[in-house]
Amino acid sequence: MAKITVEKNLFCLPWTQTLLGTRVHGKVNFMALDWLTRVNFDPAMLGICVGRAHASNEAIRETGEFSVNVPTQDMIEVTDYCGIASARREDKSKLFEVFYGQLQKAPLIAVCPIAMECRVVQTVELPSNTFFIAEIITIYSEERFLTNGKPDVKKIRPFLLTMPDNRFWGVGDQVGSAWKDGTTFREKLKERTGRP
Amino acid sequence: MAKITVEKNLFCLPWTQTLLGTRVHGKVNFMALDWLTRVNFDPAMLGICVGRAHASNEAIRETGEFSVNVPTQDMIEVTDYCGIASARREDKSKLFEVFYGQLQKAPLIAVCPIAMECRVVQTVELPSNTFFIAEIITIYSEERFLTNGKPDVKKIRPFLLTMPDNRFWGVGDQVGSAWKDGTTFREKLKERTGRP
Repeated sequence: MAKITVEKNLFCLPWTQTLLGTRVHGKVNFMALDWLTRVNFDPAMLGICVGRAHASNEAIRETGEFSVNVPTQDMIEVTDYCGIASARREDKSKLFEVFYGQLQKAPLIAVCPIAMECRVVQTVELPSNTFFIAEIITIYSEERFLTNGKPDVKKIRPFLLTMPDNRFWGVGDQVGSAWKDGTTFREKLKERTGRP
Repeated sequence: MAKITVEKNLFCLPWTQTLLGTRVHGKVNFMALDWLTRVNFDPAMLGICVGRAHASNEAIRETGEFSVNVPTQDMIEVTDYCGIASARREDKSKLFEVFYGQLQKAPLIAVCPIAMECRVVQTVELPSNTFFIAEIITIYSEERFLTNGKPDVKKIRPFLLTMPDNRFWGVGDQVGSAWKDGTTFREKLKERTGRP
């Protein structure tokens, strides 16, 4: 099929929608966060990307701490509101009941099935954004969101964002098993090539 | 509800599964890649995290180039195989038909609905992994994967990974609209507080 190019600045893969928690000049604040990834296995580290103009960016520079919270599909409107409203003009400090773990500048959202407190270890400045690399100090959940002690995406009910169509999606059916389905392929490959 | 802590090193949010394309000592290679995110808006930049022991890590250091390809659900077995098999022991160079854009060391997978060629601009060393920050040079797709000129997740049919349960998932139904549902919440907030 003929390959064409698409607008490179807008396309995002489906990402899990999260809420970034900070304290801006002492006041609790939240923003919608989509640009994040694990960046180191051991110690467990996460990297998050925040535009330099955001109040949250200033807050993380000031405190060196933040939280990443995974909202459920029941929280779509309030989560999107956190992405639309700027802390510089609207007060988001009362939107959620918060709790604290070890870090006093990383407000954790009680209603979120997964909430992680993180401490910044490195800051990378990029042209329009800052990439904060942080150690995950603790991840909090509740028994009702786990299956066999592991967070269960079907119980957590997170939602995903795609851009530039700006749609939120649920997680669908299980379609495979990682570190397992590949062994089936390897067997087929061996049969095809006749190699042991 | 009582909060409990979960194993912080293993939990991943659902991420879109991708395939990383490189040239290792001139030979085309692919590995399964889950730890990636956009990191800068303009210019469009992506960051990917690769363990230091991987052949792909060595390749990117050598060439400064790589591709990120989004496989469909029809490619689960071969994608997982790319995550299981090391280029140091198994030859993955013939698994896919490749093509090249501007970068000669960033092999793009023809069958993938989305394929991006990237050039490294900064390398961040972390304890066990390397975080490569790269400019997205071009994103390739095909007309049949777009709706109104935008990549359509329902036509692309990517799949997602969760850990530590190691399951692959499809993308489910649309559950909301970003930068829109939040305005509904704002209206409700205004009604509740009586503020203009």
